Amino acid sequence: MTLKPPSVSRRGLLTGGAAAGLGQVAAAAPATAATAADDTGTATVAFHGPRQAGVAQDPPAHAAFAAFTLAPGADRAALGRMMRLLTDDAARLTQGVPALGDTDATLAVLPARLTVTFGFGPGLYRAARLPSPVADLPKFSIDRLQSRWSGGDLLLQICADDPLTVAHTQRMMIKDARPFAAVRWVQQGFRRSPGVQSPEHTQRNVMGQLDGTANPRGGEIDPAVWNPDGSSTLVVRRVRAEMETWDKLSVTDKELAVGRRMESGAPLSGTLEHDRPDFAVLDETGLPKIPDFSHVTRARVEDPRLKILRRPYNYDGVPDASGVPDCGLIFAAYQRDIVEQFVPIQKRLAEKDLLNEWITPIGSAVFAVPPGCAEDGWIGEQVLA
Amino acid sequence: MTLKPPSVSRRGLLTGGAAAGLGQVAAAAPATAATAADDTGTATVAFHGPRQAGVAQDPPAHAAFAAFTLAPGADRAALGRMMRLLTDDAARLTQGVPALGDTDATLAVLPARLTVTFGFGPGLYRAARLPSPVADLPKFSIDRLQSRWSGGDLLLQICADDPLTVAHTQRMMIKDARPFAAVRWVQQGFRRSPGVQSPEHTQRNVMGQLDGTANPRGGEIDPAVWNPDGSSTLVVRRVRAEMETWDKLSVTDKELAVGRRMESGAPLSGTLEHDRPDFAVLDETGLPKIPDFSHVTRARVEDPRLKILRRPYNYDGVPDASGVPDCGLIFAAYQRDIVEQFVPIQKRLAEKDLLNEWITPIGSAVFAVPPGCAEDGWIGEQVLA
Repeated sequence: MTLKPPSVSRRGLLTGGAAAGLGQVAAAAPATAATAADDTGTATVAFHGPRQAGVAQDPPAHAAFAAFTLAPGADRAALGRMMRLLTDDAARLTQGVPALGDTDATLAVLPARLTVTFGFGPGLYRAARLPSPVADLPKFSIDRLQSRWSGGDLLLQICADDPLTVAHTQRMMIKDARPFAAVRWVQQGFRRSPGVQSPEHTQRNVMGQLDGTANPRGGEIDPAVWNPDGSSTLVVRRVRAEMETWDKLSVTDKELAVGRRMESGAPLSGTLEHDRPDFAVLDETGLPKIPDFSHVTRARVEDPRLKILRRPYNYDGVPDASGVPDCGLIFAAYQRDIVEQFVPIQKRLAEKDLLNEWITPIGSAVFAVPPGCAEDGWIGEQVLA
Repeated sequence: MTLKPPSVSRRGLLTGGAAAGLGQVAAAAPATAATAADDTGTATVAFHGPRQAGVAQDPPAHAAFAAFTLAPGADRAALGRMMRLLTDDAARLTQGVPALGDTDATLAVLPARLTVTFGFGPGLYRAARLPSPVADLPKFSIDRLQSRWSGGDLLLQICADDPLTVAHTQRMMIKDARPFAAVRWVQQGFRRSPGVQSPEHTQRNVMGQLDGTANPRGGEIDPAVWNPDGSSTLVVRRVRAEMETWDKLSVTDKELAVGRRMESGAPLSGTLEHDRPDFAVLDETGLPKIPDFSHVTRARVEDPRLKILRRPYNYDGVPDASGVPDCGLIFAAYQRDIVEQFVPIQKRLAEKDLLNEWITPIGSAVFAVPPGCAEDGWIGEQVLA
């Protein structure tokens, strides 16, 4: 993205970034390549291709994660019908075309980089009498999981730069999923609005931290995220921010817990956000500048193939009467393999991460992300056909 | 706005529009006039002036309406202290400056046209032993009001083009209000993201209608909205959209209920959105083209001084297990006088509006909007000092 000539508009960069992120997906499906439109509302991301969209692209501003419980008796044939229908909806809506049964067609015309990404939970494979490539996470000591934010047989990750587009897509696709599945939970989240920050700027979360600095970048993404068949996996965790106690910390204490500066995001061993953290650097008292139990120390992954691609969204619900906020992070992470990549990181964090005192996982779900499909195919055809 | 030269960027127009909307507020307070910044994130709207901001400006993309119940025993002196504190917070945060007690200063630097508008409910005047300029609305037959969305002694209307800015402002100001008041309800809503539509384009609501076509415009706004002392009034109603039954209507039936075309927003008597509805035009069967009981017929106001300024936001909550959505409109309307302007319209609509079958008011609150203040003043000083 930094190679673009300076005359390219910020909006062009935004949509250009989406196209660049698509990589070989766009190349494999030239008829529906991402449009480098100059308008935030009309910009589209290609739906068809060997890998699903909504993973490698820069996350748009708004997201709804909708998880479903399959209806009793839904078998492989029924699941195939469901996925043909939902694939058709997603293929149309992401390109600004109303779904076949769209009851509010006027709301479909501004896709705003809309992507719909499908995930299959362990229950879907059980229903289809197939072995599941994903299994529920082990229990972590820090978890305070609530069933209302956990599990799910099917997931729709709906992302767009416009909240009304997300709302419309969520509604239409839930309607079409109804004969096959009940809504289990829906989590709605946000990042910075389009144009508020330059696309290459790391977003802040509700705790004020820059969030996503250590993500794999550029050529690191493919080997960390995608299996050779175009599949991936997704972990969605709802992490409540304990703002009442977090607010009582000084900036210095917050920085020691995180291991990075609040304002710049730089590791405590360096000066710039993307400086490589140096865990050997000592302060004047002989202690590591980045504490051993800081979040950045415990979360670090040296092997790029073992990194996870975090694609989180903030949530902000309604505070209680005494003003205690209900906010935090919809933590969404993509990786080839949950057991090999996600679980070791989460185990280290659950054991000894200073930040644990101010964050509480209250929801958790895992999904296989099936490969993308061609224009005459459907998502899940490799599994369910 | 249409007089701007075409070289002005769309973002410039957006912020320029805000400045134009400010009218004499900006003129009266040149030191804090709205900045015509070229960046969605850094754009500011002046806080100080004879009228509060957040009323006449084009509504930004995101809003939180936070209503409070005053603590028992809060008297006029305490309310004065509260309003001095909250005014100081708002004056700083709207200009991209952290609040004095800001615990997450990094989240304060991108105001994105942030406005904080204060409303005083009848209970605040009771607590201050003063006559209230506003009274609860009469009961309407269509109302199904829930106390969790109704009433309130104090209101903060927080609007910005970025949802993280709204979340941060909401959190900081609720914290500072705590010694004086409990949170009664918070309603969060959205319109189109910045850049998704041109600013002069009327937004759509979750039912697919263009929403706000009949608003007073230009010179009509001042005599409809502002009293000579710079005060106004605000009605906030939560209106649930009954999407399950609305979805069953044909486009033609929707248009007959509304009195306007779904796609263009044109009245059924005309062809363009801003064509003046002609209620005398008959169709080929001799019936009025715009049905007598259509929403546009029942809501119409001929005298511009009696119009109300609608500033609504969409809401979209979490659907239930069967997929029934929880969405609708946070209907916010500003006018000089609720009894003279709002009540007659709402009475006509409650009696005979075809649209009533598909919308249900579930929350209602009224607030006096005190005048703005100078840099050395505070909101409410005319009432509480």
